[in-house]
Amino acid sequence: MTIEKTNRMNALFEFYSTLLTEKQMNYMELYYADDYSLGEIAAEYEVSRQAVYDNIKRTEKILEEYERKLHLYSNYVVREELVEKIKKQLAENYEPDPTLFNLIDAIQEVEE
Amino acid sequence: MTIEKTNRMNALFEFYSTLLTEKQMNYMELYYADDYSLGEIAAEYEVSRQAVYDNIKRTEKILEEYERKLHLYSNYVVREELVEKIKKQLAENYEPDPTLFNLIDAIQEVEE
Repeated sequence: MTIEKTNRMNALFEFYSTLLTEKQMNYMELYYADDYSLGEIAAEYEVSRQAVYDNIKRTEKILEEYERKLHLYSNYVVREELVEKIKKQLAENYEPDPTLFNLIDAIQEVEE
Repeated sequence: MTIEKTNRMNALFEFYSTLLTEKQMNYMELYYADDYSLGEIAAEYEVSRQAVYDNIKRTEKILEEYERKLHLYSNYVVREELVEKIKKQLAENYEPDPTLFNLIDAIQEVEE
């Protein structure tokens, strides 16, 4: 699997994991975040490698479907870019203002 | 139904309507946004008043469940408050800066 695919799945998982079943969550976490192989997950859960593979493929589709409908991840990326531009504009044109800086930081932390 | 309930359902609907079925969407929109009565919706769709009522009650639960898991609406409220505070801090302490103002406005428009 590619690094782009891994990064995307880990990102979508951050936003939508609460909508998954416990099994879907566990498999995705082991495979994408903890880099377990399909065989290792199968051994751990005492199921076939194919069952793990099918579950993960289905979960990937579910995560992409949620992103298509809610676009939480793409909104997050756009918002982060805007906040960085705001910080840059402030840093280049104004004296440091802790009140403003803390408020802007708080925006980035809302989802976390 | 109370105005608080109506406002909350309209707000949750804004964030999660894409996760509902077409029927759930239609009933919720007619009942909460367009102020149709259960009887009027029932007549429009040629189903019983009870069927409309049950569908709406179930959809309300589904919306609250999504909010419990994803808190998009409560995050939005927190973010709006922060953006308003940032605007206030800028207005009270700095000369108008269109670049900054546009970037901050853009943050508010990401979800829309």
